[in-house]
Parts: sequence; C-alpha cells; structure tokens
Amino acid sequence: MADPEFILNAWHVGALSHEVEAEALFPRRLLDRPVLFYRRERDGTPVAMLDRCPHRFAFLSKGRRSGDDIECIYHGLRFGPDGRCTRSPYQDSPPPGAAVEIFPVVERHRMIWIWMGDPAQADPATIPDHSHMDREDMRPLLWHVQFAGNWQLGNDNLMELSHLFWLHTSSIGGWKPDAGATPGEVYSARSADGKVFSRTLVPDITRPGVFDNNIPAGQAYDQWTATVWEAPANMRVTMGAVPAGDDPASLRQPYMEQTHCITPETAGSSHYFSGFTRTFELDRDAEGDRRFVEFFRGIFEREDGPMMEDIELQMASHDLFAHHPLVLPRDRGAVLARRMVAQRLAGEQAARGNAQPEPALAG
Amino acid sequence: MADPEFILNAWHVGALSHEVEAEALFPRRLLDRPVLFYRRERDGTPVAMLDRCPHRFAFLSKGRRSGDDIECIYHGLRFGPDGRCTRSPYQDSPPPGAAVEIFPVVERHRMIWIWMGDPAQADPATIPDHSHMDREDMRPLLWHVQFAGNWQLGNDNLMELSHLFWLHTSSIGGWKPDAGATPGEVYSARSADGKVFSRTLVPDITRPGVFDNNIPAGQAYDQWTATVWEAPANMRVTMGAVPAGDDPASLRQPYMEQTHCITPETAGSSHYFSGFTRTFELDRDAEGDRRFVEFFRGIFEREDGPMMEDIELQMASHDLFAHHPLVLPRDRGAVLARRMVAQRLAGEQAARGNAQPEPALAG
Amino acid sequence: MADPEFILNAWHVGALSHEVEAEALFPRRLLDRPVLFYRRERDGTPVAMLDRCPHRFAFLSKGRRSGDDIECIYHGLRFGPDGRCTRSPYQDSPPPGAAVEIFPVVERHRMIWIWMGDPAQADPATIPDHSHMDREDMRPLLWHVQFAGNWQLGNDNLMELSHLFWLHTSSIGGWKPDAGATPGEVYSARSADGKVFSRTLVPDITRPGVFDNNIPAGQAYDQWTATVWEAPANMRVTMGAVPAGDDPASLRQPYMEQTHCITPETAGSSHYFSGFTRTFELDRDAEGDRRFVEFFRGIFEREDGPMMEDIELQMASHDLFAHHPLVLPRDRGAVLARRMVAQRLAGEQAARGNAQPEPALAG
Ligand code: FES
Ligand code: FES
Ligand code: FES
Repeated sequence: MADPEFILNAWHVGALSHEVEAEALFPRRLLDRPVLFYRRERDGTPVAMLDRCPHRFAFLSKGRRSGDDIECIYHGLRFGPDGRCTRSPYQDSPPPGAAVEIFPVVERHRMIWIWMGDPAQADPATIPDHSHMDREDMRPLLWHVQFAGNWQLGNDNLMELSHLFWLHTSSIGGWKPDAGATPGEVYSARSADGKVFSRTLVPDITRPGVFDNNIPAGQAYDQWTATVWEAPANMRVTMGAVPAGDDPASLRQPYMEQTHCITPETAGSSHYFSGFTRTFELDRDAEGDRRFVEFFRGIFEREDGPMMEDIELQMASHDLFAHHPLVLPRDRGAVLARRMVAQRLAGEQAARGNAQPEPALAG
Repeated sequence: MADPEFILNAWHVGALSHEVEAEALFPRRLLDRPVLFYRRERDGTPVAMLDRCPHRFAFLSKGRRSGDDIECIYHGLRFGPDGRCTRSPYQDSPPPGAAVEIFPVVERHRMIWIWMGDPAQADPATIPDHSHMDREDMRPLLWHVQFAGNWQLGNDNLMELSHLFWLHTSSIGGWKPDAGATPGEVYSARSADGKVFSRTLVPDITRPGVFDNNIPAGQAYDQWTATVWEAPANMRVTMGAVPAGDDPASLRQPYMEQTHCITPETAGSSHYFSGFTRTFELDRDAEGDRRFVEFFRGIFEREDGPMMEDIELQMASHDLFAHHPLVLPRDRGAVLARRMVAQRLAGEQAARGNAQPEPALAG
Repeated sequence: MADPEFILNAWHVGALSHEVEAEALFPRRLLDRPVLFYRRERDGTPVAMLDRCPHRFAFLSKGRRSGDDIECIYHGLRFGPDGRCTRSPYQDSPPPGAAVEIFPVVERHRMIWIWMGDPAQADPATIPDHSHMDREDMRPLLWHVQFAGNWQLGNDNLMELSHLFWLHTSSIGGWKPDAGATPGEVYSARSADGKVFSRTLVPDITRPGVFDNNIPAGQAYDQWTATVWEAPANMRVTMGAVPAGDDPASLRQPYMEQTHCITPETAGSSHYFSGFTRTFELDRDAEGDRRFVEFFRGIFEREDGPMMEDIELQMASHDLFAHHPLVLPRDRGAVLARRMVAQRLAGEQAARGNAQPEPALAG
C-alpha cells in the first residue's frame, strides 16, 4: 500500500461560501474523490454528497434537482440530502439501504468546511479560527486558485515567507536592496497545542506602492509577521508595521490579516483558498476590492503557482524528508508543520491498519 | 498478471464495409493491437494484418501497396495477404519464416468481422446474426463512433434502455411526463444459448417528432423493445409500436431493427458500430439518410458517449461487481451480460494459464 | 529495479556550443535529470550544474546570475561553478557541505560534452572524434532536434542507412527506380576497439537535385558511405562518390562528413545533435547555410522523427532483442551497436549492484 497522501480526519475547506450558489449543483474533486455541493431550498444550508450515483456511477452533479433531492441523469434514481435513495423508478420503493455517501459540512467564516474521514469524529469545534473573515468592517475578501502540485507544497511555501524577497521581488516583495544581507532580522518558530507559531521581524523596510500599511509613503518602517498554522494546511498570517526603530509593542493594530487554506484535489494538485481582511483603504468600492483580488490572484498565478508546479516535477515522492533537503534556520516553521503532518498521516494509516481494507472503488 | 480485459476467441467488428475502400490501407487499433485492413485487388475481399513490420516495427499501414503485397516504408520488406514475406531487399530470397501475423476476417452484414484469438477456433458460423442489414429494401444504415471508456460500458448502456427516459429526455427519449411513475410497464430478461434476451413494454407513450413509427402523430401508443445480446458486445434491438391498448400480438411489423456492436480499442477506449434498418420513411434520398445518421451520431456524441467517459473516470477497475453497485430490477439484462463476459474472460485466462507465456511485444 | 536505460559513464553531447550564450542560463533535461548550462564570465568556459536547488528543489535555471554564481529564485541561496553554496541569507556562512551537483564538461568540436556518471572516470581523451567540425574551411553546420522515442532508436535508424531508399524516397533518397533490386551493392560491418565500422557501396545512382556531390548533374555515379559508431550514440558518416564504374580508390576526397550524436532526454524521448561539413558549395553565404540546415531539419521532422516515434509506440520495452525482431543482412552494424550498448548497460548495472542504492530523489 502506498503512503497515505491525505489527512482524512480533519476539516478541509471544500468551497468558499460564494462559490456555491442557491440553485446550483457545484462539483469539486477533493482528496481525490468527487464531491457535489448544493444548498437546501428552505434555509440555504449546504450539503456535500459523494458525486457518484451508487447505481452505475454517473456524476450526480450532472443530474437535476427535485426540491432538495438530486435525480441522477442516467436512470433516474433520486437521493435526499441525508444520502438516502428517495425514489427508484420501476419500483414501489427504493431498494433497502440504497444510499449515497454524505459528508459532514459546516459553513463558517465565509467558507464551507467538509469532513471526509470518520463522520463520528467530525467536531465543528475543531474548525480553525478564521473569525476575522466575519468582520464586515474589515472588508473580508476570499478567492480560489489551483496549482498542479501536492498540497504540502502550499504549507512549505507559506511557512517560509523569506521567499517574499526573492520570488516576489518584482511584485509584493521588492522592499530591500540586498535581502541576503539582513542585519537585525528576527525569526522564531515553535509548536504548541498542535499548532505552529512563527514570527518574523524585518526592520527598516521601504514600502512598495502596492498597498497601504498605515505607514506614510516614503517612511521606513519595521515589519512584523505572525503566522499560526494548523493541520492539514490552514494558516492565519497577521501583518503589522511601526515606524522604523519604534517599539513593536507600540503597534495598535495590524494592518492585514490573511487566511490561507489548502485542500488536496488529487495527490498532485491542490485547491488554494486565500484571502485577507484589512484596516486600510476601507473606502474602496466593490470594483476596487475586485482589483485587490485580481492583484493577489495574479501574483499567485505568475509566481507561487508555477514555483510549486516546478517543485512537484522535481520531487519523485511527496515526502520531503526522503529527499534529504538542505535545512536552513528559516525552515523551522515549515519543518515543524511537515513533521506534524507526517505524524497525522502515520497515525491515520496505523488506525486503518486495524480496520477494514479500503473499498475497491477508488473515487 | 492483470485481469484480462478482452475476449480473444470471438468475432469482433473491425470495420464497417464502407470504411475500407478499394485502394486504401486502413489502420485501426483493436483489442490494443494495431491492425491494418485492406482489400485484395481481384475481388475486394478484405485482409487484416498486424500493423507492425516484424523487422523494426514500422506501421505497415504507412507503407505502399504493390499489388496485394504491402511494402514497408522503412526498409522495404514486402508481405503478402497470407502474411508471408515476399521480398527482402539485398537478399535473393526472404529470410525463411519471415512473416507478419494475419487475422481471420469475414465480411458479412455490411461489416468486416475479425478474429484475434486462436485462428483454429475461428468459425464463421458463430458470427452474430445481423442479417437485417442485408435487406436493401429496409435501407440499412451503419456508422462508427468512439468513446473513451471500457467496451463493457457499451453493454451496460444498451442493456439498460430505461436510460432513454432520463439521459435522452431532450432528444429521443422525451416521451413521458414523469417517467419515474410507470404503471403498466413490463420488463423481463433471461439468458439462453449464450445469449441474453430482454423485453420491455412501455404503454401509453406520446411520440416525439423525431422519427416515424407507423403510428399517426398525436396518437398514444404502446412501445415494445426486444433485445438479443451476444458476447462480447453484439446487440440487435427490435422496436415495435401498436395503438395504445391494442394487443401487442396485433403488430404486423416492427418499425425499426437496430445493430449495436462494440469492439475494444484499448482497455479504456472503444469503437462503437451502430446502425438500423426501418420500415418508415423509405422514400428518403441519400441526403435524408445522411441526416438520420447525423442525428443518431449526434445523440451519441452529446449524451451516451460523455456518460460512458464519466463512468470510466469513476471506476478504478473495469470489473463492475468489484464496485458493489446498487442493483435494480431493470439491471437484469445488463447483469446477465456482465456475468457471461466475466465467465468468458476467466475461461480464456485459465486456458492461457496452461499455454505459453505472452510474447514480450505488447502490440 | 527496472532495466537501466542510460549509459552513465560516457560523454554525451549536452548542448551545441552556439546554444549556450554568454549570459544565459540554459536548462536541458538529460538522462532524465535536469541540467543547467552556463558560461563563466571570464573565459566563457561552460559549467553544467544539476538544475535543482538542494533546499526546496526550485529550478536554478529560473534564478539569477551573480557573477559566476547562481542565485536561487525561491529563497536566495547562491551556488558557485564548483557547486558549493557561496551565500545563505540569514546566516553568517552557508551550512557546511551545502552544495549542488556539478557535472564534468568539455567543450570540443563545437559541442559541449557532459559526463553524468562517476566523475572520477571522466577522461576527456575518450570524447569521440568529430574533429572535422573544427575545419572552418569545410563550413561546419550543426543543429538540434528532438524525437519522442528512446535514444537507441537513433542508433538503429542511422546504422541502417538502407532506409534512405524507402523512407526518404521523396526527399534525399529518391535515387533508384527499384531499390529492392540491387545488383552490385556491397555492405560490410565489423566491430573493433569498442567501435562499429560499416561500409556501403551503392553503384550506378542518379543524383537528386538536392545537393552537390562533386559529380556533374545527370551523370551516374557510385556512392560509398562509411560509418564509425561509438557508444552511447555517436556516429561519423563519411560520404563519397565517383563516376559510375570508376575505381572507388580513385576518390580524392569525400564530399560530406556527417556528425550524429543522440543523448537521452528521458527513456522515451531524445535529443539529436546533427550536422555536417562539406567540400561543395563552399561559397554559400550564411543565409544559404541556414537553408541547408532547414532542409535537413525538415527531412528529420517529417520522416525520421515520426518513424522513431511510431516505433516507440510499437515497442513495449526498449530492449530490441526481447521483441525477437526479424534480422536482415543489412542489420549487422545496428545489431553490433545494440549488443555493445547492452553490454555497457549490464556492466554499469552490475557495478552499481555492489555500490550504494540510488538516492530517493529521482531528478
Ligand atoms: S447511474 Fe444513477 S440511476 Fe443509474
Ligand atoms: S521496419 Fe519494415 S522493413 Fe525495416
Ligand atoms: S529552493 Fe532554492 S533557496 Fe529555497
């Protein structure tokens, strides 16, 4: 049996709230299984259903809604939001036990979270905190992109923010004449309570013109960044700035809070849900906000995405440590996250070892 | 060794008669091997040759004809319709034993049937009966399409004609307001003599405007459909209609007789040879007939083909039963066919077990 | 472990001299590993470096030059032409031992030769002789093409030049009315000193208008071709012509000397470096020479390349002999080369058997 690639017993972001419209059947591949999302008519609460009819495996997302039931396009079986078959044509009642798999879902922080492991363990209290996304006054923005690489490359990328000064030199990272010479930088990373906390202080930066950070243009500042990571791939990144040389403790409010959640599509491709809230330029209209999203999406699509796709090509397996990578001081946060993921994967594999074998149907 | 995917000792349709023109070298991949079809000059009888030169494996179909011999384009070897090498440049006579594999072929019912298993077992008497295709007066029409799915999905699709009322709702199946409520429908399926016979009576249908069935437009009718299936994937479907409520036995003549033959291209892609004869609209000209073909080909390409390709994606293996599908009453015919195929595949595998190993050359 | 596909302890052509420009970072996949070529600032001597940063595996070829160092685009590590890490940001000095793999290279005969096996065995004296490419007065021309087939198909193709009369009938080979009847042709092949020498005399040819061979147009001539092959896939082909019937010994000078070197890109795709020097039409200008290159490149791309790609499709493994091919008299040279390659591959595999296992990182 191959090494497991996915953490099953965890909440993953399946979709952003705005992606699943009221009437729609919204299909998405997650953890290499096909999932159908839709919303109940009465109250709009989301449903997540295996996107495969148990009869002959048509995609249910290509079927039709009949109220809150989904009717398969191939031979007309209907399934309700609890997964049970509600009508089988040519029979007085559906075959006993006929059902499609349903996944627990919770809509929270403008995202739809899905649990694809053992449903008995699905506790909404363990959904990572992205409550800043509930702050209307901070203008929450969220978007979805994809990359053709393993989901853990997203952790690696975001837990090693020093790449801002190289990969993003020409976009959001062009702040220092020679980033390699970095007197005064402070970096720390530690793990606790199943989380990784990392912190960077970069002193004496000159701001690019991209976005405001509450420091007047042209004035040097000290930038600090704090990241909280939770498995499988949830990150909250808080960014603050004070005039160069000021006591960081004098900061009253970070200027930006970012959300980064990555969900495997397959072992070699990923969904990336990204966004932020802010304290600056709050008077932008919807079109102005849209331009923010396009700007950041563009950076990802030109810089981070291709980089992760390159690395996917370069790695024969997805186990970083098997490749004996060079380890640098700034890798500490990324390495702590990699280790926690490895532990979770091994733990789930051991637990499955005592349970029934996997079903023959891969989907 | 992987499970066998193809029944070798059987007649498969390799090509439609009209596809192989008098002068042409016609290549087609069948059962995952390259085959070259061509016609002898004298009487046009077809030849089927492995489409690979035994020297350095060029496709012979890219060569040239020299009478009934095929000359390889790469270094000029020539092979006759019996497979034997007839000339080797730079030698007085061809190397003893030099030959390319020849497959038994029979042209019958406007199709060229090929036998790719043990030639000693190739008995033309076992070619399935599609003799209605010989009836010029019934305007035989045949065409070829392909789908990116395992050939057995074609059996599943055609042996479960209830899909007419869902998948084909907007084309040929839009006949009933709620197909799921079906009082009076009668369905039966049984196997005998290595065949599966299924029969459906659907009462009180209103005809779509697509084609005539000898019932006046606007008049309700009872439709019956009888299917005869033979391994590997040959079906003859007879369709008849009587005014609603009449005794089916009063039917003097079915209005349509369909031919459906599926031949594997590879394990995951298939050739589908389809056609019909009819008793209606016999005065159509060639252009009118061409429109019939385009209409049915279009339905396949928009509806059945994509469905089978979806299911191919959804199935990790081609063994339906390993996926524990939901089984419905209307599946009886399809399940009987699946079982017969499984038996044939297992039988051939067992027979090979006692024989020599497979050659190193896959093609 | 799969059969080895590449001879590691050998000089392969990695690039043509003109492909690697002074300032450029030139990436190329060779023997299924990513290689970065560039030139030192001071004297332009070439460097070949594994094109993968040892930190998180970014392609170094996407980085930046800093003098003769390469700076990784992802997190800024720098590596010198000896492979050693020269700067790690956020550290006073690079981690001890941090380095990227460097491959021995030699620039000779207008090509950059690379050694990807054990560096201790890399002896420039064993680079095959293509010194005719150093003769400015013979107007050396070299170009690069690729084909989607195993590299040994290039040996097979070029060691069996009889294909000129079939595959190239409509381009450079259209010389004889019926090439299959060949009175007077003489062919021989023998191996010695790890080389294969083959020789063909084709009498009484009429020249196509393509290029001059020092025989007046319209006059029949006898053509002789001598090939020297060296592993892995280096060939030098000398072509001469005398008026038909003359003593071949009367030839004062061959009219053309060809270079053919093939280097694996992956097991199923290859780089082909090809070129020639000549004694005719020496007064062509650069544009005239460019048209020569385009002409030969075009023949390859329409005729030889597709043929090798066909054969790649037809062969389940790359071991020709496992397919029990028909062997013809003219195959002698190709078969001798195949055998020498098989011996070298087996020898290297045996040597590795006693050494450490392959690293986990495939690249
Ligand atoms: S596949 Fe869904 S009803 Fe048959
Ligand atoms: S490959 Fe056919 S003659 Fe050589
Ligand atoms: S991948 Fe090159 S420095 Fe990190």
